[in-house]
Amino acid sequence: MSGNPASGDHVGTDRFAHDPAFAVHEGGKLSVSSTRSIGSIADLALTYTPGVARVSSAIAAEPDLARRFTWAPRVVAVVSDGTAVLGLGDIGPAASLPVMEGKACLFSEFAGLSSVPIVLSTTDVDEIVETVAAIAPSFGGINLEDISAPRCFEIEARLRERLDIPVMHDDQHGTAIVVLAALRNAARVVGRELGDLRVVVSGAGAAGVACTKILLEAGVGEIAVADSQGVLHAGREVTGTKRWLVENTNRTGFAGTMVSALEGADVYLGVSGGSVPEAAIASMAENCIVFSLANPTPEVDPEMAARHAAVVATGRSDLPNQINNVLAFPGVFRGAIDAGATRITEEMKLAAAAAIAGVVGDEVRADYIVPSPLDRRVATAVAEAVAACAREQGVTR
Amino acid sequence: MSGNPASGDHVGTDRFAHDPAFAVHEGGKLSVSSTRSIGSIADLALTYTPGVARVSSAIAAEPDLARRFTWAPRVVAVVSDGTAVLGLGDIGPAASLPVMEGKACLFSEFAGLSSVPIVLSTTDVDEIVETVAAIAPSFGGINLEDISAPRCFEIEARLRERLDIPVMHDDQHGTAIVVLAALRNAARVVGRELGDLRVVVSGAGAAGVACTKILLEAGVGEIAVADSQGVLHAGREVTGTKRWLVENTNRTGFAGTMVSALEGADVYLGVSGGSVPEAAIASMAENCIVFSLANPTPEVDPEMAARHAAVVATGRSDLPNQINNVLAFPGVFRGAIDAGATRITEEMKLAAAAAIAGVVGDEVRADYIVPSPLDRRVATAVAEAVAACAREQGVTR
Repeated sequence: MSGNPASGDHVGTDRFAHDPAFAVHEGGKLSVSSTRSIGSIADLALTYTPGVARVSSAIAAEPDLARRFTWAPRVVAVVSDGTAVLGLGDIGPAASLPVMEGKACLFSEFAGLSSVPIVLSTTDVDEIVETVAAIAPSFGGINLEDISAPRCFEIEARLRERLDIPVMHDDQHGTAIVVLAALRNAARVVGRELGDLRVVVSGAGAAGVACTKILLEAGVGEIAVADSQGVLHAGREVTGTKRWLVENTNRTGFAGTMVSALEGADVYLGVSGGSVPEAAIASMAENCIVFSLANPTPEVDPEMAARHAAVVATGRSDLPNQINNVLAFPGVFRGAIDAGATRITEEMKLAAAAAIAGVVGDEVRADYIVPSPLDRRVATAVAEAVAACAREQGVTR
Repeated sequence: MSGNPASGDHVGTDRFAHDPAFAVHEGGKLSVSSTRSIGSIADLALTYTPGVARVSSAIAAEPDLARRFTWAPRVVAVVSDGTAVLGLGDIGPAASLPVMEGKACLFSEFAGLSSVPIVLSTTDVDEIVETVAAIAPSFGGINLEDISAPRCFEIEARLRERLDIPVMHDDQHGTAIVVLAALRNAARVVGRELGDLRVVVSGAGAAGVACTKILLEAGVGEIAVADSQGVLHAGREVTGTKRWLVENTNRTGFAGTMVSALEGADVYLGVSGGSVPEAAIASMAENCIVFSLANPTPEVDPEMAARHAAVVATGRSDLPNQINNVLAFPGVFRGAIDAGATRITEEMKLAAAAAIAGVVGDEVRADYIVPSPLDRRVATAVAEAVAACAREQGVTR
């Protein structure tokens, strides 16, 4: 017998009062409102019956009118099954909701897009695909979020195949876009070309795979990807996405631990959690680059990394060079939706990365390789680049 | 290649400019926004990572905290497959969206509840049940809408059984609640008791069935329900909900047309469409009551009805006594949610009807049996009555 749980009942005796994060979450962080005022019977008769019937009839006769006369084309569903939430793992749909609400807040704040968290009571791949396909006419884009690997790869691939609206698993591609943007600028700081860099990626989950793919597409010369068993190479018996990695990375056939692979490497990209010893970072090439993205505890201690690397980036908001997905996803969906894109292509992601790097421009320096997550220029620049790319590729309605 | 369909491109040459309903729908009628401002890195670190992780962790450890720290308990999904939209029939999900958006506008305006339209690409009963169950952790209530009979009965029953949040098919129960409220006050106008009235219900679809059930629960003595084949009686070979009607109505075993059943009847309730001849209305009892709810064209012409009936109500906003669901659903869900109700019981619906009738109170007269749909007192009164009933019945968390 609860009464209204969002009321002020808890004040005074509240065991959550010590942490302002709970105050920010009291009652949730989102609100849906009508964009039309309903102050008269005439308003009611236009917004609802009988006037709405004329709009519905027009759409029934000419389905494309739904793009103009409904909100759906400008609403993004943030879909999660709660299986891989931040660093917390499989915490289920209800506990994942604050994260999905947060994402929706950012869509609203940075891209002016409406967004609705959809958390699922199932973790079955087929059921997730069927559910999202069933509700898809309600939305203009699907942002998949915090779904564990390898399920996330199949779910995204099947939904991209099935739906004619943008579908993107942000843990993969949002991270990958920002990492590429950051690496472009880090390479400028140390005076190197992407094609000359040898990169070690620690982690073969959603983010590791997507980062590897976009770095290959951007022309990075040599990448070794390590999972918990060491660097992936042709001698490893692996399937699925890891098989793809074996076939497309590690051309030298290096077989060994992630730590041994770091010797002489130019770039460390950590998307795995865990901890890297100082000796391994010290063994990297001169002017090396360390991106250590585990949150809240980076794989490489940032102070230690600074003793050896020319450029250090983390996922932390209290340090310079924060690799934060918010630099990518609001503008990517805004651009795709503005262009009426039916999908998000590889080229659109590369365009987004270039746009993020471009906001930094000539001000680039070791502690400024990516814009602040609060920089309002970013979403606009990304949206324009993504929309232009979509139109150029002709993947629009 | 569309560009932004919500932009002003169409001005000047716009074939929809003649009808203000289209202007009201330009770009859709809803918006999701963040209730927290994100103006600093500190805001971002509380609303999103890393602060949000502490809230998610707390909910993972203690699931009931989701009621306090997420928006879900206060969000209603308005779910439709677009198969029985207003008087338009099976127009599909996209064309039904303006109606569902309108409903969400009314939830926001009248009950301060957030609401999200979910329109479905499937009309299969099993798939609809599975889809709604899968997304249910995202919501605090499910308003089913414009789903055709008899599928709507099974879908609602299965979801009520399966979910521990309020589920209500509004075309059934919203209509029934307002009809009962109106009939209570109409009976007062003509000085009759509900138990003494003989009622003819024209229509055995979603609304007809639910109205019949609530009138029986409220003590109406005799009800005959007619479908397109005439009055339902024991000799008719029918199944499902119609079988239930045969077993629970028409105690006298009347077998004949709806028109013939009207002779001497006290109440006509039209929820079917079609047209009733004047002679049939003229054959009803003295001081009879005519509720003709088809929209936009009532089954009984209101001017004609006024020549024979003491009280006339319609679904039209331009006439007195509008039977409009907006009198019920915002307050019903608001009350259920405020009380933390796990379901909407028959008693809660009866309490809602009494509350609506009570707002009219002693001002009741032939042309004022229900409040105006704009009367802001209604949702509050309904919510309080429904919440009190839920707490009394103990169907709360």
